[in-house]
Amino acid sequence: MARTYREAGVDIQEAKRAVERIARAAATTATPAALSTIGGFGGLFRFDPSTHPDPILVSSTDNVGTKLKVAIALGRHETVGVDLVNQSVNDVAVTGADPLFFLDYLAVGQLRAEVAETIIAGVANACAAAGVVLIGGETAQLPDVLRDDDYDLAGFLVGVVARADLIDGSRVRAGDVLIGLPSSGLHTNGYTLARRVLPPEAWAEPMPDGGRTIGDALLEPHRSYLDEVRLLRRALRGRGSDIGALAHITGGGWEGNIPRTLPPGLGVEVETGSWPVPAIFTLIQQRGDIADDEMVATFNVGIGMTVVVPAADADAALDAIGDACRIGRVVDVVEGEPRVRFT
Amino acid sequence: MARTYREAGVDIQEAKRAVERIARAAATTATPAALSTIGGFGGLFRFDPSTHPDPILVSSTDNVGTKLKVAIALGRHETVGVDLVNQSVNDVAVTGADPLFFLDYLAVGQLRAEVAETIIAGVANACAAAGVVLIGGETAQLPDVLRDDDYDLAGFLVGVVARADLIDGSRVRAGDVLIGLPSSGLHTNGYTLARRVLPPEAWAEPMPDGGRTIGDALLEPHRSYLDEVRLLRRALRGRGSDIGALAHITGGGWEGNIPRTLPPGLGVEVETGSWPVPAIFTLIQQRGDIADDEMVATFNVGIGMTVVVPAADADAALDAIGDACRIGRVVDVVEGEPRVRFT
Repeated sequence: MARTYREAGVDIQEAKRAVERIARAAATTATPAALSTIGGFGGLFRFDPSTHPDPILVSSTDNVGTKLKVAIALGRHETVGVDLVNQSVNDVAVTGADPLFFLDYLAVGQLRAEVAETIIAGVANACAAAGVVLIGGETAQLPDVLRDDDYDLAGFLVGVVARADLIDGSRVRAGDVLIGLPSSGLHTNGYTLARRVLPPEAWAEPMPDGGRTIGDALLEPHRSYLDEVRLLRRALRGRGSDIGALAHITGGGWEGNIPRTLPPGLGVEVETGSWPVPAIFTLIQQRGDIADDEMVATFNVGIGMTVVVPAADADAALDAIGDACRIGRVVDVVEGEPRVRFT
Repeated sequence: MARTYREAGVDIQEAKRAVERIARAAATTATPAALSTIGGFGGLFRFDPSTHPDPILVSSTDNVGTKLKVAIALGRHETVGVDLVNQSVNDVAVTGADPLFFLDYLAVGQLRAEVAETIIAGVANACAAAGVVLIGGETAQLPDVLRDDDYDLAGFLVGVVARADLIDGSRVRAGDVLIGLPSSGLHTNGYTLARRVLPPEAWAEPMPDGGRTIGDALLEPHRSYLDEVRLLRRALRGRGSDIGALAHITGGGWEGNIPRTLPPGLGVEVETGSWPVPAIFTLIQQRGDIADDEMVATFNVGIGMTVVVPAADADAALDAIGDACRIGRVVDVVEGEPRVRFT
């Protein structure tokens, strides 16, 4: 019979050790707006409404998914927090919002303060890089739900955009140009399939394009596009124009993400071969014998974010950021037809 | 070899069905401030700064913990969402903030749209009751991490308080009165221990106090104290006074939660027996042969929230809300001594 909470699998002392370490990592992200430190009931963020007139708070929640299984199996917990934050930053940035503060949710089978600290240090690093305050979090011990070494990591980001600056797709017209921003790899989507095709036995193999291992390629962190979005917007606004739509290519792939940023009746025609496809996708497709349409429904296949700009501004947009590609255009789509077509 | 994402255990079609059902539930919480519907990248909440001058955004993340194991085993998913929302509402309310919007995070082994809908309907019901918009969420399929029927549920709440209205403990003085607001049961804490003491075989047994089963008592939803906090505050402010501190008794029990709401050098002396202890706690303590100090370090033991008020206002505070109890007082505490003492 379990007589204490610790014997039942929940360790409050280890939780205190973890909270202290996590608080140190989070402190590196503090700004004058952060009024509370981690450990209180709620995170306090002083919001200055004068910075964003008629403010809209933009919030997003996401998780790292089964990319965690790779990190756990390889004992490499440094970058899963980066994955977590950057995908949320992108989800908020597609509205034109500035990210403000973040909270993490870490569920563990068996709590190990050092592992939790490493994970949250990654969260804090990515927050600091985006100018985001890590203002709170929860570490839950779920000994009967998760295996000892397993964990799940989710997060929550709040940003703000002035209502006049909201990117909502309403400016998009047929004939606009579709620009793609390169992904660093799978980002955080498609890992359940990727791991079937590339099981743990394959992770020590070198990648076909040399240098690093398959495991390295699978763990490559999710890229943030916050800087690119800001650069692009500044360049277009300098021309009296603006971004039409931004889509973050995550779960559901291209068809699952681009259409929801466009007005009804519009879709995109994408020119296959117009951007470099990272070797990890080719490897997965070949080894798994996966059809093209399944690939783009599951993976970003090399493009982590798409940007719609007026055709007249496309060159200026491409000049504003280094490594973007012109990958297609906006077209009229008849009701019932696919809104993303590859040619 | 898995050739599609679905064969690999991730079902995008079922995810779409779930999103549609969840969106319907969430729509019941919409207010004019909600500018987006679930399914976009971010939730959009129009914030009117004039309602809360010098606004502080108060955010909290929490999860339901292994109370979910009881809900899953009994196939009763209606109220876990209520647990989730109400505990976050309480965490935000202790600062004096008004809750604004909520996002849920649901991780499942095998996605079943009907179960997800039932869970999120509970979230939506509790949001609506608190005047909170359910503005977004994430449903993650983790087939290799969670067992088929298992799920994990976490959430994020954002509220706002005018800086002048922030409850931060600075008004608390030795001699103030400690008031307890009754809990409805375990709320969402201590379930890993409670389930060892009261295993699934016991859940169909009637409670010693009659009527319902032990399973019913274990699933009793987490109570929200938002209305009580507002009533109390209105009553005290009408007397030119205010609440000194509020503590939500959650993970870590009494010692883990009350001290962090008090200024350094102050603690509380709690009069054992000054409030009714619900039968479920007595049952757990007896069957588990659990020491008193372990009980109050793990469970709320009948008090879900404590309120510190000036002694002169204690009667008025007790009159303002129906079922509160005077349970102790604020005392000076020497450095190194326990800050919660039971007499």
